[in-house]
Amino acid sequence: MHSCAVVGLGLIGGSLARDLAARGVRVIGYDRDDATVRAALAEGVIDDAVTRGFAGVEEAEVVVLAVPVSWAVGLLTEAAPRLHSARLVTDVGSTKRRIVQAAAALGLGGRFVGSHPLAGEHRSGWGASREGLFAGARVFVCPTPDAGDAAVEAARGLWADVGALPEVVPAEWHDRHLAWTSHLPQAASTALALALAAEGFSRGELGPGGRDVTRLAGSSPEMWSGILAENADAVVPALAALERRLREIRRAVAKGDQPALMRLLEQGRGWFGQG
Amino acid sequence: MHSCAVVGLGLIGGSLARDLAARGVRVIGYDRDDATVRAALAEGVIDDAVTRGFAGVEEAEVVVLAVPVSWAVGLLTEAAPRLHSARLVTDVGSTKRRIVQAAAALGLGGRFVGSHPLAGEHRSGWGASREGLFAGARVFVCPTPDAGDAAVEAARGLWADVGALPEVVPAEWHDRHLAWTSHLPQAASTALALALAAEGFSRGELGPGGRDVTRLAGSSPEMWSGILAENADAVVPALAALERRLREIRRAVAKGDQPALMRLLEQGRGWFGQG
Repeated sequence: MHSCAVVGLGLIGGSLARDLAARGVRVIGYDRDDATVRAALAEGVIDDAVTRGFAGVEEAEVVVLAVPVSWAVGLLTEAAPRLHSARLVTDVGSTKRRIVQAAAALGLGGRFVGSHPLAGEHRSGWGASREGLFAGARVFVCPTPDAGDAAVEAARGLWADVGALPEVVPAEWHDRHLAWTSHLPQAASTALALALAAEGFSRGELGPGGRDVTRLAGSSPEMWSGILAENADAVVPALAALERRLREIRRAVAKGDQPALMRLLEQGRGWFGQG
Repeated sequence: MHSCAVVGLGLIGGSLARDLAARGVRVIGYDRDDATVRAALAEGVIDDAVTRGFAGVEEAEVVVLAVPVSWAVGLLTEAAPRLHSARLVTDVGSTKRRIVQAAAALGLGGRFVGSHPLAGEHRSGWGASREGLFAGARVFVCPTPDAGDAAVEAARGLWADVGALPEVVPAEWHDRHLAWTSHLPQAASTALALALAAEGFSRGELGPGGRDVTRLAGSSPEMWSGILAENADAVVPALAALERRLREIRRAVAKGDQPALMRLLEQGRGWFGQG
């Protein structure tokens, strides 16, 4: 790859731009924030910087949308007329069905392959971006149904080049998998934070265990409100299942039913022990 | 202090015995497990070891019950006739109302002061015990209503001597505080583990955030079934509050109401940010 357009220079986009630049790729960077594009330019990470519109995007071989999921479809629609020469258009969003469907509807299907690098951190923005963020990270790669082999290989190659471990899966599988393994833990952590906040308990009053459970409450509301809303049909049953389990525990506690609690806690520990 | 009887040589009792022995205190160790008492004796941590009954306990100046909360009252009742010369009898359980009430009912009130060192770890048993476990740890100290000043000062001294930070609070305050800051996070983590287990997701499939949220599911079922059952009246409202918060999030997700989700996530992050 000789040239790549990275739209959104936050933690993910900024880190990808750094890795690509370090490998000699010409990177065109886009960001809504002036200060970010100036910083990326000054650090020599990007060769060209754009704050509005998609000027120059038609020259890029690969285009990466690295924006929160709630903006990705809008930006893809806006950029679509300029994406006719790219051999790969991808994104980095945490849900995949909607963007893949939108890309197909925009006629980009043959060259659109969605991506989801599991490399989030609590920090966000250009200031948090760094070279090497993707080293060893799992990246889900979700082709549109009509994506060409060349585009799928280009997506795998993009991530493998920056040290990540790409894995091709259907968008439907991805969204259900993430609803349980990522979106549900996020919601659980936020719910616990809200319950504690309402009773006036601060995070500083928790032990190490309680701090672990509430760590995800520090995640970006902007990013997560979009993810949860967009993956609603997969997230709702997961949340309902968690509520049922809590109710089961609550009822055993209310009865002082120590054997029942023992069974529930043992099941949980058995699961934990399997790693 | 010249002599201390430590009943139960697990993580907490074993570590306390090590710290006291290192400070020249004569330690008499009790454990239901033969191998544990042999090991503690062989390592020179305890001077005398007893596997059944409370032989010799009457000689100890200070007696510490370091057993799961569900056994503590039974053992205290059994040992009570031999505790007339101790100037301090304490425990290390994670709930405090019941043991404090039981001690008062047994006529030990003047010399019983409950303790709860916040020094748990996922590992347990003699094998996990170590010198220095209590260094810098918060220890709640809960006197019976009729505890003498000398007993309260002896309890503070015991913990301060091993490097901990004792804090005297009423047992009622303690149990409510712990219900929210410790027992609720434990139940939340176990509930999430159960929900994921039922859908066939393993812990290895979670990202770092999900692993944080489920870490407490690895805690001891024996210890936690007792704690939750014993603190039921304080834990039940906390669990119900968490269920309500999850339901609130679920309903906003189901509607795809991104502004409502944004508000909830922002409240959670605001709480997180206050530390």
